[in-house]
Amino acid sequence: MGDKLYLSYRQIHRTVRSLAARIKADGFEPDVIVAIGTGGFIPARMIKTYIDLPILTVGIRAYDSNNQLERPRKIQWIDEVEKKLTGKKILLVDEVDDTRTTLEYCLTELNSHSPAETAVAVLHHKQKPKLGVIPNFVERYYAGVDIEDVWIAYPWDAEDIDEHCDRAELSESAVGSEA
Amino acid sequence: MGDKLYLSYRQIHRTVRSLAARIKADGFEPDVIVAIGTGGFIPARMIKTYIDLPILTVGIRAYDSNNQLERPRKIQWIDEVEKKLTGKKILLVDEVDDTRTTLEYCLTELNSHSPAETAVAVLHHKQKPKLGVIPNFVERYYAGVDIEDVWIAYPWDAEDIDEHCDRAELSESAVGSEA
Repeated sequence: MGDKLYLSYRQIHRTVRSLAARIKADGFEPDVIVAIGTGGFIPARMIKTYIDLPILTVGIRAYDSNNQLERPRKIQWIDEVEKKLTGKKILLVDEVDDTRTTLEYCLTELNSHSPAETAVAVLHHKQKPKLGVIPNFVERYYAGVDIEDVWIAYPWDAEDIDEHCDRAELSESAVGSEA
Repeated sequence: MGDKLYLSYRQIHRTVRSLAARIKADGFEPDVIVAIGTGGFIPARMIKTYIDLPILTVGIRAYDSNNQLERPRKIQWIDEVEKKLTGKKILLVDEVDDTRTTLEYCLTELNSHSPAETAVAVLHHKQKPKLGVIPNFVERYYAGVDIEDVWIAYPWDAEDIDEHCDRAELSESAVGSEA
Protein backbone atom coordinates (compact mmCIF):
# COMPACT_ATOMS: atom_id res chain seq x y z
CA MET A 1 0.00 0.00 0.00
CA GLY A 2 1.12 3.52 -0.68
CA ASP A 3 3.38 2.29 -3.44
CA LYS A 4 2.87 3.47 -6.97
CA LEU A 5 3.46 1.15 -9.90
CA TYR A 6 4.53 2.93 -13.09
CA LEU A 7 3.80 1.02 -16.28
CA SER A 8 5.01 1.85 -19.77
CA TYR A 9 2.98 1.41 -22.94
CA ARG A 10 5.35 -1.36 -23.99
CA GLN A 11 4.66 -3.26 -20.78
CA ILE A 12 0.91 -2.80 -21.22
CA HIS A 13 1.08 -3.91 -24.84
CA ARG A 14 3.03 -7.03 -23.84
CA THR A 15 0.47 -7.80 -21.14
CA VAL A 16 -2.30 -7.46 -23.74
CA ARG A 17 -0.47 -9.83 -26.05
CA SER A 18 -0.20 -12.53 -23.41
CA LEU A 19 -3.79 -11.91 -22.34
CA ALA A 20 -5.04 -12.35 -25.91
CA ALA A 21 -2.96 -15.51 -26.29
CA ARG A 22 -4.58 -16.96 -23.18
CA ILE A 23 -8.08 -16.11 -24.39
CA LYS A 24 -7.34 -17.89 -27.67
CA ALA A 25 -5.72 -20.87 -25.93
CA ASP A 26 -8.83 -21.14 -23.77
CA GLY A 27 -10.90 -21.64 -26.92
CA PHE A 28 -13.04 -18.57 -26.31
CA GLU A 29 -14.09 -16.96 -29.59
CA PRO A 30 -15.98 -13.74 -28.86
CA ASP A 31 -18.11 -11.98 -31.46
CA VAL A 32 -17.61 -8.47 -30.16
CA ILE A 33 -15.43 -6.48 -27.77
CA VAL A 34 -17.13 -4.08 -25.39
CA ALA A 35 -14.72 -1.53 -23.90
CA ILE A 36 -15.53 0.21 -20.65
CA GLY A 37 -14.62 3.88 -21.03
CA THR A 38 -12.36 5.50 -20.54
CA GLY A 39 -9.95 3.03 -18.88
CA GLY A 40 -10.76 0.21 -21.27
CA PHE A 41 -10.32 2.20 -24.50
CA ILE A 42 -6.58 1.68 -24.89
CA PRO A 43 -6.47 -1.98 -23.71
CA ALA A 44 -9.42 -2.82 -26.00
CA ARG A 45 -7.78 -1.22 -29.03
CA MET A 46 -4.58 -3.15 -28.30
CA ILE A 47 -6.52 -6.42 -27.94
CA LYS A 48 -8.11 -5.82 -31.35
CA THR A 49 -4.66 -6.26 -32.91
CA TYR A 50 -4.64 -9.88 -31.70
CA ILE A 51 -8.38 -10.61 -31.70
CA ASP A 52 -9.79 -8.60 -34.58
CA LEU A 53 -13.38 -7.73 -33.71
CA PRO A 54 -15.61 -4.67 -33.72
CA ILE A 55 -15.31 -2.62 -30.53
CA LEU A 56 -18.37 -1.13 -28.88
CA THR A 57 -17.89 1.20 -25.95
CA VAL A 58 -19.81 1.98 -22.83
CA GLY A 59 -19.00 5.10 -20.88
CA ILE A 60 -19.17 4.79 -17.13
CA ARG A 61 -18.51 7.38 -14.48
CA ALA A 62 -18.12 6.00 -10.99
CA TYR A 63 -19.76 8.32 -8.52
CA ASP A 64 -18.63 8.49 -4.99
CA SER A 65 -21.74 9.38 -2.99
CA ASN A 66 -20.85 10.44 0.57
CA ASN A 67 -17.62 8.48 0.30
CA GLN A 68 -19.65 5.35 0.91
CA LEU A 69 -19.93 3.56 -2.39
CA GLU A 70 -18.84 3.99 -5.96
CA ARG A 71 -22.03 4.21 -7.94
CA PRO A 72 -21.54 3.82 -11.68
CA ARG A 73 -23.53 6.07 -13.98
CA LYS A 74 -23.85 5.70 -17.73
CA ILE A 75 -22.10 8.31 -19.85
CA GLN A 76 -22.78 6.44 -23.04
CA TRP A 77 -24.47 3.16 -23.68
CA ILE A 78 -24.86 0.93 -26.67
CA ASP A 79 -28.42 1.81 -27.61
CA GLU A 80 -29.44 0.88 -31.10
CA VAL A 81 -26.81 -1.79 -31.38
CA GLU A 82 -27.46 -3.34 -28.01
CA LYS A 83 -30.15 -5.55 -29.48
CA LYS A 84 -27.40 -6.97 -31.65
CA LEU A 85 -25.79 -8.36 -28.50
CA THR A 86 -28.54 -10.95 -28.15
CA GLY A 87 -27.02 -14.38 -28.71
CA LYS A 88 -23.52 -12.97 -29.10
CA LYS A 89 -20.36 -13.79 -27.20
CA ILE A 90 -19.03 -10.62 -25.57
CA LEU A 91 -15.52 -9.88 -24.36
CA LEU A 92 -15.86 -7.04 -21.84
CA VAL A 93 -12.59 -5.13 -21.43
CA ASP A 94 -11.38 -2.75 -18.75
CA GLU A 95 -7.95 -1.78 -17.50
CA VAL A 96 -8.28 -2.91 -13.90
CA ASP A 97 -10.42 -5.02 -11.59
CA ASP A 98 -10.19 -2.80 -8.52
CA THR A 99 -13.30 -2.58 -6.32
CA ARG A 100 -15.21 -4.60 -8.97
CA THR A 101 -18.18 -2.21 -8.76
CA THR A 102 -17.98 -1.07 -12.38
CA LEU A 103 -17.46 -4.60 -13.66
CA GLU A 104 -20.49 -5.92 -11.77
CA TYR A 105 -22.60 -3.05 -13.07
CA CYS A 106 -21.56 -3.49 -16.70
CA LEU A 107 -21.82 -7.28 -16.63
CA THR A 108 -25.32 -7.13 -15.17
CA GLU A 109 -26.46 -4.50 -17.68
CA LEU A 110 -25.00 -6.37 -20.64
CA ASN A 111 -26.60 -9.62 -19.49
CA SER A 112 -30.05 -8.05 -19.73
CA HIS A 113 -29.60 -8.18 -23.52
CA SER A 114 -29.33 -11.98 -23.42
CA PRO A 115 -25.87 -12.50 -24.87
CA ALA A 116 -24.77 -16.11 -25.44
CA GLU A 117 -21.87 -15.48 -23.09
CA THR A 118 -20.03 -12.60 -21.47
CA ALA A 119 -16.38 -12.92 -20.54
CA VAL A 120 -14.19 -10.40 -18.75
CA ALA A 121 -10.63 -9.35 -19.63
CA VAL A 122 -8.69 -6.87 -17.51
CA LEU A 123 -5.03 -5.90 -17.63
CA HIS A 124 -4.67 -5.97 -13.87
CA HIS A 125 -6.47 -7.73 -11.09
CA LYS A 126 -5.91 -6.14 -7.69
CA GLN A 127 -5.82 -8.67 -4.89
CA LYS A 128 -7.97 -6.84 -2.35
CA PRO A 129 -11.44 -7.03 -0.78
CA LYS A 130 -14.08 -6.33 -3.45
CA LEU A 131 -17.24 -4.22 -3.21
CA GLY A 132 -18.77 -5.84 -6.29
CA VAL A 133 -19.03 -9.42 -7.49
CA ILE A 134 -18.49 -11.18 -10.78
CA PRO A 135 -22.00 -12.57 -11.39
CA ASN A 136 -22.47 -16.31 -11.59
CA PHE A 137 -23.35 -16.22 -15.28
CA VAL A 138 -19.74 -15.17 -16.06
CA GLU A 139 -17.71 -18.30 -16.69
CA ARG A 140 -14.54 -16.80 -18.12
CA TYR A 141 -12.44 -14.19 -16.35
CA TYR A 142 -9.02 -13.24 -17.69
CA ALA A 143 -6.57 -11.01 -15.86
CA GLY A 144 -3.25 -10.13 -17.48
CA VAL A 145 -1.43 -9.68 -14.19
CA ASP A 146 -2.42 -10.23 -10.55
CA ILE A 147 -1.01 -7.46 -8.39
CA GLU A 148 -1.06 -6.21 -4.84
CA ASP A 149 -3.32 -3.30 -3.91
CA VAL A 150 -0.97 -0.59 -5.20
CA TRP A 151 -1.68 2.59 -7.11
CA ILE A 152 -1.17 1.80 -10.79
CA ALA A 153 0.17 4.72 -12.84
CA TYR A 154 -0.95 3.97 -16.38
CA PRO A 155 1.07 5.56 -19.17
CA TRP A 156 -1.95 7.27 -20.72
CA ASP A 157 -2.32 9.36 -17.56
CA ALA A 158 1.24 10.69 -17.79
CA GLU A 159 1.82 14.40 -18.27
CA ASP A 160 5.43 13.70 -19.24
CA ILE A 161 5.59 10.34 -20.99
CA ASP A 162 9.38 10.14 -21.03
CA GLU A 163 9.71 10.73 -17.31
CA HIS A 164 6.90 8.20 -16.77
CA CYS A 165 8.54 5.50 -18.87
CA ASP A 166 11.87 6.00 -17.13
CA ARG A 167 10.12 5.39 -13.81
CA ALA A 168 8.32 2.38 -15.30
CA GLU A 169 11.62 0.76 -16.18
CA LEU A 170 12.86 1.29 -12.65
CA SER A 171 9.75 -0.25 -11.10
CA GLU A 172 9.48 -3.09 -13.62
CA SER A 173 10.83 -5.57 -11.11
CA ALA A 174 7.92 -4.71 -8.79
CA VAL A 175 5.31 -6.05 -11.24
CA GLY A 176 3.43 -9.11 -10.04
CA SER A 177 3.79 -12.41 -11.83
CA GLU A 178 1.87 -12.97 -15.05
CA ALA A 179 -1.28 -14.81 -14.11
CA MET B 1 5.15 6.57 -51.31
CA GLY B 2 5.81 2.96 -50.41
CA ASP B 3 7.63 4.03 -47.28
CA LYS B 4 6.36 2.95 -43.90
CA LEU B 5 6.61 5.24 -40.92
CA TYR B 6 6.87 3.40 -37.60
CA LEU B 7 5.76 5.40 -34.58
CA SER B 8 6.20 4.47 -30.93
CA TYR B 9 3.66 5.13 -28.19
CA ARG B 10 6.05 7.66 -26.69
CA GLN B 11 6.16 9.61 -29.95
CA ILE B 12 2.36 9.52 -30.23
CA HIS B 13 1.96 10.63 -26.64
CA ARG B 14 4.37 13.55 -27.22
CA THR B 15 2.43 14.53 -30.35
CA VAL B 16 -0.80 14.49 -28.32
CA ARG B 17 0.79 16.68 -25.68
CA SER B 18 1.81 19.35 -28.19
CA LEU B 19 -1.56 19.05 -29.93
CA ALA B 20 -3.40 19.63 -26.66
CA ALA B 21 -1.14 22.58 -25.87
CA ARG B 22 -2.00 24.16 -29.21
CA ILE B 23 -5.73 23.66 -28.67
CA LYS B 24 -5.44 25.39 -25.31
CA ALA B 25 -3.24 28.18 -26.68
CA ASP B 26 -5.85 28.71 -29.38
CA GLY B 27 -8.41 29.45 -26.68
CA PHE B 28 -10.69 26.59 -27.71
CA GLU B 29 -12.49 25.12 -24.69
CA PRO B 30 -14.52 22.10 -25.77
CA ASP B 31 -17.27 20.57 -23.64
CA VAL B 32 -16.88 17.01 -24.85
CA ILE B 33 -14.48 14.80 -26.81
CA VAL B 34 -15.94 12.55 -29.49
CA ALA B 35 -13.55 9.78 -30.52
CA ILE B 36 -13.90 8.09 -33.88
CA GLY B 37 -13.44 4.35 -33.37
CA THR B 38 -11.28 2.52 -33.45
CA GLY B 39 -8.39 4.74 -34.62
CA GLY B 40 -9.35 7.65 -32.39
CA PHE B 41 -9.71 5.65 -29.16
CA ILE B 42 -6.08 5.81 -28.07
CA PRO B 43 -5.39 9.43 -29.17
CA ALA B 44 -8.63 10.58 -27.48
CA ARG B 45 -7.74 8.86 -24.21
CA MET B 46 -4.29 10.45 -24.30
CA ILE B 47 -5.80 13.90 -24.99
CA LYS B 48 -8.06 13.47 -21.95
CA THR B 49 -4.94 13.61 -19.76
CA TYR B 50 -4.33 17.20 -20.91
CA ILE B 51 -7.92 18.29 -21.61
CA ASP B 52 -10.03 16.44 -19.06
CA LEU B 53 -13.46 15.90 -20.59
CA PRO B 54 -15.95 13.07 -21.02
CA ILE B 55 -15.26 10.98 -24.12
CA LEU B 56 -18.08 9.78 -26.31
CA THR B 57 -17.30 7.40 -29.14
CA VAL B 58 -18.66 6.77 -32.57
CA GLY B 59 -17.81 3.56 -34.36
CA ILE B 60 -17.22 3.84 -38.06
CA ARG B 61 -16.33 1.18 -40.56
CA ALA B 62 -15.11 2.48 -43.90
CA TYR B 63 -16.43 0.31 -46.70
CA ASP B 64 -14.60 0.04 -49.95
CA SER B 65 -17.29 -0.62 -52.54
CA ASN B 66 -15.75 -1.75 -55.82
CA ASN B 67 -12.50 -0.06 -54.88
CA GLN B 68 -14.06 3.22 -55.83
CA LEU B 69 -14.93 5.03 -52.66
CA GLU B 70 -14.65 4.56 -48.95
CA ARG B 71 -18.19 4.63 -47.64
CA PRO B 72 -18.41 4.99 -43.88
CA ARG B 73 -21.00 2.97 -42.03
CA LYS B 74 -21.99 3.38 -38.42
CA ILE B 75 -20.93 0.64 -36.02
CA GLN B 76 -22.02 2.61 -32.98
CA TRP B 77 -23.49 6.05 -32.63
CA ILE B 78 -24.21 8.33 -29.75
CA ASP B 79 -27.96 7.80 -29.49
CA GLU B 80 -29.52 8.90 -26.26
CA VAL B 81 -26.72 11.29 -25.47
CA GLU B 82 -26.59 12.83 -28.91
CA LYS B 83 -29.28 15.30 -27.93
CA LYS B 84 -26.88 16.47 -25.26
CA LEU B 85 -24.57 17.67 -28.01
CA THR B 86 -26.94 20.51 -28.85
CA GLY B 87 -25.25 23.78 -27.98
CA LYS B 88 -22.03 22.04 -26.97
CA LYS B 89 -18.49 22.55 -28.23
CA ILE B 90 -17.19 19.26 -29.60
CA LEU B 91 -13.62 18.17 -30.14
CA LEU B 92 -13.74 15.36 -32.70
CA VAL B 93 -10.65 13.13 -32.51
CA ASP B 94 -9.19 10.64 -34.96
CA GLU B 95 -5.69 9.31 -35.55
CA VAL B 96 -5.23 10.45 -39.15
CA ASP B 97 -6.69 12.73 -41.79
CA ASP B 98 -6.10 10.48 -44.77
CA THR B 99 -8.75 10.55 -47.51
CA ARG B 100 -10.91 12.74 -45.25
CA THR B 101 -14.02 10.66 -46.03
CA THR B 102 -14.60 9.52 -42.46
CA LEU B 103 -14.00 13.02 -41.06
CA GLU B 104 -16.48 14.58 -43.48
CA TYR B 105 -19.07 11.93 -42.63
CA CYS B 106 -18.70 12.30 -38.87
CA LEU B 107 -18.57 16.11 -38.93
CA THR B 108 -21.72 16.28 -41.02
CA GLU B 109 -23.56 13.79 -38.80
CA LEU B 110 -22.51 15.54 -35.59
CA ASN B 111 -23.55 18.92 -37.00
CA SER B 112 -27.11 17.67 -37.42
CA HIS B 113 -27.37 17.80 -33.62
CA SER B 114 -26.73 21.56 -33.62
CA PRO B 115 -23.57 21.77 -31.54
CA ALA B 116 -22.26 25.25 -30.74
CA GLU B 117 -19.04 24.33 -32.52
CA THR B 118 -17.23 21.28 -33.80
CA ALA B 119 -13.45 21.26 -34.02
CA VAL B 120 -11.20 18.52 -35.40
CA ALA B 121 -8.01 17.14 -33.89
CA VAL B 122 -5.93 14.46 -35.63
CA LEU B 123 -2.49 13.14 -34.83
CA HIS B 124 -1.41 13.13 -38.46
CA HIS B 125 -2.48 15.03 -41.52
CA LYS B 126 -1.44 13.38 -44.76
CA GLN B 127 -0.57 15.85 -47.48
CA LYS B 128 -2.40 14.22 -50.37
CA PRO B 129 -5.48 14.73 -52.57
CA LYS B 130 -8.62 14.32 -50.45
CA LEU B 131 -11.86 12.52 -51.31
CA GLY B 132 -13.79 14.30 -48.55
CA VAL B 133 -13.92 17.91 -47.37
CA ILE B 134 -13.84 19.62 -44.01
CA PRO B 135 -17.27 21.32 -44.06
CA ASN B 136 -17.39 25.12 -43.93
CA PHE B 137 -18.95 25.14 -40.47
CA VAL B 138 -15.70 23.75 -39.03
CA GLU B 139 -13.51 26.67 -38.01
CA ARG B 140 -10.82 24.88 -36.02
CA TYR B 141 -8.70 22.08 -37.39
CA TYR B 142 -5.69 20.83 -35.45
CA ALA B 143 -3.15 18.35 -36.80
CA GLY B 144 -0.29 17.18 -34.61
CA VAL B 145 2.05 16.53 -37.51
CA ASP B 146 1.82 17.13 -41.26
CA ILE B 147 3.33 14.23 -43.15
CA GLU B 148 3.83 12.94 -46.67
CA ASP B 149 1.53 10.27 -48.01
CA VAL B 150 3.33 7.37 -46.34
CA TRP B 151 1.96 4.28 -44.63
CA ILE B 152 1.84 5.03 -40.90
CA ALA B 153 2.49 2.03 -38.68
CA TYR B 154 0.81 2.92 -35.39
CA PRO B 155 2.10 1.17 -32.29
CA TRP B 156 -1.30 -0.25 -31.33
CA ASP B 157 -1.28 -2.31 -34.54
CA ALA B 158 2.03 -3.97 -33.67
CA GLU B 159 2.15 -7.72 -33.12
CA ASP B 160 5.57 -7.36 -31.49
CA ILE B 161 5.71 -4.02 -29.69
CA ASP B 162 9.43 -4.18 -28.94
CA GLU B 163 10.39 -4.83 -32.56
CA HIS B 164 8.00 -2.06 -33.58
CA CYS B 165 9.48 0.49 -31.18
CA ASP B 166 13.01 -0.36 -32.27
CA ARG B 167 11.98 0.40 -35.87
CA ALA B 168 10.24 3.58 -34.71
CA GLU B 169 13.46 4.87 -33.20
CA LEU B 170 15.29 4.18 -36.44
CA SER B 171 12.71 6.02 -38.53
CA GLU B 172 12.25 8.88 -36.07
CA SER B 173 14.27 11.20 -38.24
CA ALA B 174 11.80 10.62 -41.09
CA VAL B 175 8.90 12.19 -39.14
CA GLY B 176 7.57 15.41 -40.62
CA SER B 177 7.94 18.66 -38.75
CA GLU B 178 5.51 19.43 -35.93
CA ALA B 179 2.81 21.57 -37.48
